[in-house]
Amino acid sequence: MAGNGRETPGLKVEIAETEGVRTQVRVGEVVFGAEALAVIAGPCAMESEEQYLEAAVAVAQAGGRCLRAAAFKPRTSPYSFQGLEREGLRLARMARQVTGLPVVTEVLDTRLVEEVAEAVDCLQIGARNMQNYELLKEVALSGRPVLLKRGLSATIEEWLLAAEYLFAGGNDQVILCERGIRTFETATRNTLDLNAVPVLRERTHLPVIVDPSHGTGRRSLVVPMARAAVAAGADGLIVEVHPDPDRALSDGFQSLSPQGFRDLMQAIEPVARAVGRSL
Amino acid sequence: MAGNGRETPGLKVEIAETEGVRTQVRVGEVVFGAEALAVIAGPCAMESEEQYLEAAVAVAQAGGRCLRAAAFKPRTSPYSFQGLEREGLRLARMARQVTGLPVVTEVLDTRLVEEVAEAVDCLQIGARNMQNYELLKEVALSGRPVLLKRGLSATIEEWLLAAEYLFAGGNDQVILCERGIRTFETATRNTLDLNAVPVLRERTHLPVIVDPSHGTGRRSLVVPMARAAVAAGADGLIVEVHPDPDRALSDGFQSLSPQGFRDLMQAIEPVARAVGRSL
Amino acid sequence: MAGNGRETPGLKVEIAETEGVRTQVRVGEVVFGAEALAVIAGPCAMESEEQYLEAAVAVAQAGGRCLRAAAFKPRTSPYSFQGLEREGLRLARMARQVTGLPVVTEVLDTRLVEEVAEAVDCLQIGARNMQNYELLKEVALSGRPVLLKRGLSATIEEWLLAAEYLFAGGNDQVILCERGIRTFETATRNTLDLNAVPVLRERTHLPVIVDPSHGTGRRSLVVPMARAAVAAGADGLIVEVHPDPDRALSDGFQSLSPQGFRDLMQAIEPVARAVGRSL
Amino acid sequence: MAGNGRETPGLKVEIAETEGVRTQVRVGEVVFGAEALAVIAGPCAMESEEQYLEAAVAVAQAGGRCLRAAAFKPRTSPYSFQGLEREGLRLARMARQVTGLPVVTEVLDTRLVEEVAEAVDCLQIGARNMQNYELLKEVALSGRPVLLKRGLSATIEEWLLAAEYLFAGGNDQVILCERGIRTFETATRNTLDLNAVPVLRERTHLPVIVDPSHGTGRRSLVVPMARAAVAAGADGLIVEVHPDPDRALSDGFQSLSPQGFRDLMQAIEPVARAVGRSL
Repeated sequence: MAGNGRETPGLKVEIAETEGVRTQVRVGEVVFGAEALAVIAGPCAMESEEQYLEAAVAVAQAGGRCLRAAAFKPRTSPYSFQGLEREGLRLARMARQVTGLPVVTEVLDTRLVEEVAEAVDCLQIGARNMQNYELLKEVALSGRPVLLKRGLSATIEEWLLAAEYLFAGGNDQVILCERGIRTFETATRNTLDLNAVPVLRERTHLPVIVDPSHGTGRRSLVVPMARAAVAAGADGLIVEVHPDPDRALSDGFQSLSPQGFRDLMQAIEPVARAVGRSL
Repeated sequence: MAGNGRETPGLKVEIAETEGVRTQVRVGEVVFGAEALAVIAGPCAMESEEQYLEAAVAVAQAGGRCLRAAAFKPRTSPYSFQGLEREGLRLARMARQVTGLPVVTEVLDTRLVEEVAEAVDCLQIGARNMQNYELLKEVALSGRPVLLKRGLSATIEEWLLAAEYLFAGGNDQVILCERGIRTFETATRNTLDLNAVPVLRERTHLPVIVDPSHGTGRRSLVVPMARAAVAAGADGLIVEVHPDPDRALSDGFQSLSPQGFRDLMQAIEPVARAVGRSL
Repeated sequence: MAGNGRETPGLKVEIAETEGVRTQVRVGEVVFGAEALAVIAGPCAMESEEQYLEAAVAVAQAGGRCLRAAAFKPRTSPYSFQGLEREGLRLARMARQVTGLPVVTEVLDTRLVEEVAEAVDCLQIGARNMQNYELLKEVALSGRPVLLKRGLSATIEEWLLAAEYLFAGGNDQVILCERGIRTFETATRNTLDLNAVPVLRERTHLPVIVDPSHGTGRRSLVVPMARAAVAAGADGLIVEVHPDPDRALSDGFQSLSPQGFRDLMQAIEPVARAVGRSL
Repeated sequence: MAGNGRETPGLKVEIAETEGVRTQVRVGEVVFGAEALAVIAGPCAMESEEQYLEAAVAVAQAGGRCLRAAAFKPRTSPYSFQGLEREGLRLARMARQVTGLPVVTEVLDTRLVEEVAEAVDCLQIGARNMQNYELLKEVALSGRPVLLKRGLSATIEEWLLAAEYLFAGGNDQVILCERGIRTFETATRNTLDLNAVPVLRERTHLPVIVDPSHGTGRRSLVVPMARAAVAAGADGLIVEVHPDPDRALSDGFQSLSPQGFRDLMQAIEPVARAVGRSL
C-alpha cells in the first residue's frame, strides 16, 4: 500500500461531497466563506500586554475582523523568544473584550488543546504542524473552528488529507490558509502559491484564506500580494501587524505598521468589489 | 570568483540606474509599461493557415493587443510536432496584415535571429533559453524589442542578469515575463510566482507581464490567475488561445477558446481599474 | 529578529564545541559513530505478531544491529492503517527478547513519550515531526537516545537547530538521519541528499545515518544508494525489511525481503572496508 | 497533446531497445561504460596557456584519462570572464599533444559546432543548454561523442528526451552527466542527485558519469561525493582541477589542487574495486 496517500477517492473535504455547496465557517461573529472577505490581523508574536493591546485596537479600528493572538511560538532555534505562552491566553481574552473581535491562536501541543480551545475562538494549526496528526486528532475533538495552514512543502493533496483528519475526527469547521511554499527562490522568504486558491475552489468546499506576510517575507510586498490573493478568489487574509515593526521580537521585517494595515484595507477594497466581493 | 553571479552591483536593468523612471517598450503600436495593460494572445503553436488566422482574428476581436505567433517550438521530445518553422513566419506576416496587430515570435537559434527579426515585431526568448547566452547576444543585436521569459528554475537575480546580457549588447527594449517556476507541487503544471511581480517592480525599470497559461497549465485556472497577476501589478499578460482547444497539437488543456478569451478580457477589466490601470 | 534561525553562532551540536571530538551514541550494545557501521532494519509498519517477529529474526540473522519497531504510524490519509499502537510496544519488547537486538520506535505524541521511552531503547522523531518542538522538548527529557530524521524540506541548518532543541533540553544522545528531501524530481519518491553526509561531518560531532528506503522509494535502488551512503561517510543505515514485501500494509514497494537484506549487508561490506570502516 | 513529453514509449536511449546491452562510448582511447572508470579533469575555465598546460599535465600525471578544456564559458553575468574562446581551442590541441589525453569542450552556439568538433574529441552540452534543442540537433550531426549534462531542474525523463534528440539526429555516442539539481538547500551549491545513477542504469543503456565539483560547490566535499558516486555505480567522474584554486577566475572554491586531485584518485580506487570496477 502506498505511503503517499494519493488517489484517495471520496474525501469529505471535496466539493463533490457537498454537491457544490460551499462551507461557511463561523469564528465568533465573523463568517469565512461568505461574500464578505474576512481579515485576520495581529502581531507575529505577543510580546507584552501593552504591545498586544495596542496592536489589537489598531487592527479593530482599521477594519480587521479577527485577531491573531500568537501566544505559543514554534521557533526554529531553541534560543529564540518562545512566546508568552499561558500569559498570552489571558491577553487574548483581554483583547477580545476590549475590541469585540474574535481571536485565533496557534496550538502546538496535544496536552494544551483543551486549555487553548477554552480561551479562544479558533485554533490555528501552523505550517510546521500540518502533518502532526496527533495534534490534528486532538484539535478535531475541541469543538472549535480550525485555521489549517499549508505545510512548507505540502502538496495540495497532502493539505486536503490533513483537513480530512479534522473531518474524520468530527470537526467540519475548517479554514485553509495558503502561506507560501519552499522553493529555490531566495528573493522572497517563501513563494506564495496563489495557484492553490483557484485549485482549492474547484476541489474543496472549504473557505481559503491567504497569508501574504509569510508568503513574501517583506513588508513592501504585502499589499500587492494581498490584492492578488483577493483577485484570485481568496475568502480572506491573515496579516502581521505590529505597533512598532522595527522593534518586533519576531518577523518585524514582514509586519505592517497600524498605518500600513489601514492602507492595506483600503487597497484591497476596490479589488474585492472588482471580483464581486466586499470587505 | 563566484560562478553564480550574485551580488553584482550597478546593473543597467536596475531602477536605481534610471532614478525611478520606468521603461516603456513599444511593440508596433502597443506600449508595454504604460497605464494601459498589454495583452498578447494566440495559439501555443501555429498549426495551419486556417487555424492561425482564425485564432488571430478572434484575438483581435476580443481586444487582444498583440499576437503570439509560435512558428518554432522547443519540444521536450524530438518526436513531438516541432512547429511550422519558416512557413510560420509567412503566416505571422499575413495575420499582422489581416488584424493590424503586432506579432511576437520565439526564436531558438542564433542563425535565424536576423530572419525572424525581419518578419516580426518582437522576439521572444523562451524559458528553456533564458540562459542561452549566445542567443541573448545575437538577439541584443537584432534591434527588435525582446520578450524575455523566466527560466523554469531561474532565480529573479539570474533572470535580471539574463536581461542584462541584452542591455550589455545594446538593446534596452526588454519585457520580462513570469511564466511559472518548477516546484514540488504537481497539482499545477508550474507554480506561478506572482511574488516576482512586485519584487521586480521594486528592483527594475522594465515592464513585467505574466503568462497564466503556462503558469497554471489548466484552462479553468487562467482567468483567476490573470486577475491575480493584474492585481499584483503586472503590466500585461500573454495567454494561449486556440480556435478549438481540444484539437490543439500542443497545450490544448491550458488554451482558452475564443469565447474563453473574451470572458478573460471582461474579467480582468474591473480588476485593472481597481488598481489604477486600464485595458 | 529573524524568524529563520540563520546565523546562530555557538550551537552545542557543532563540532567546534567539542574541539573536533565526535560523539558516539549507544543504543543498547550498539554504538553509532564508531568505526563499525550500525544498521537498523525492520518493516515499515508492525502488522501482526507473526509478521513482526519473522522480520525481526530475519534482520538479526542477516547481521542487522538494531530493530526498527514502527508501532505508531503518521499516515498522510486518516483512512490508511495507523499502526498497532500500544500493542506494538509489547511486540517490540518481545522482538528484543527473541533477537537480543535493541529497538528504535517513532514517537508521535508528547503524551506518550514516557510510555514509549520505557518500552524501547531509542526514540525516533520522524521527518514530519522534525519541527514539532513540543515533542522535541519532551523527548529531550526522556533520557533515551534519539534518532532525528531530517524534515522533508528542512535545510541542514534547520535540522541542526532541531537537534539543538534536544541538547538545550539536556539530551546529547542524538543520531541524525538523512532520508531524502522533496524536490521537483518524480522518478524517485524523494531525492536522497548524500551531500548532507560530508556537510554534517564537517559541521557537527553527531553520528549521521542514511535511510535509502525512503530516500529512493524503490526496492531496486536501495542497495546502490546504501553503498553510496557508506562511501560518503555515513555511520550507518536504516532500511525497511519485510517478510513478504508485496503484501506489506505500507511501503512494500521500497521494502527489501529478508534475502534482499542479506544481499545488502554483503554488498556494503567491501565498500565499508574501502573507506576504512567495518560492519 | 501534452507539452511535457511524458509517457513517450520506445525511446532509442532505453535499455529495452538494446535488450540489456550497455553502450560504450569511446573518446580518443578512453572508453566510457567499460569496467574501468573514466575520469575527466581540468580547470573550470581556461585562463592562459601557462595555467592550462600546468593543469593538463597535473591531470595526466595523477591518472586523469580525459581533459576538460573549457574554452567557452556560459556565465550568469555578462560582466564575468567569458572564456578564452577560439584561443582556447588552440590550447586544447596543444594540451592534447603534450599529455596524449583526449579533450572535452563545451559548445554553446550552433554556428561554432563544426569548428569546435574539429578541434576536440568530445563535445559537451552544459546544464543550461540541455534543452537548447537547436544546439542538440547540430551537435548530433557533428560526428563527435557528446557529454550531455543534466539541466539544473531537469527531470530524468526530460534528460533522456534531450539525449533522444541526439539519437534522433543520428548520434548514439552519448555520455550522461549528473551534476546536481537545484533545490531549496543552500548549504551546498546544488544537490547532487545520486539516485539518478541507479535509476539511469535501470532505464538507459548509456554510460553515466558524475560531477562532484558542481554537484557540491565545495572543495572539501568533492572526495566523499566522488566516492559515493562510484559506489552508486557511476561509470566515471568529471572534476575541476586548477593549479592554484585560490586564484582561479571562476569556481576556485570548488576546484581541487593538483595534489587534491591525486588524493581523489587514490581515494576512489578502493571504492571502485569494492563495487567491481577499476581505475
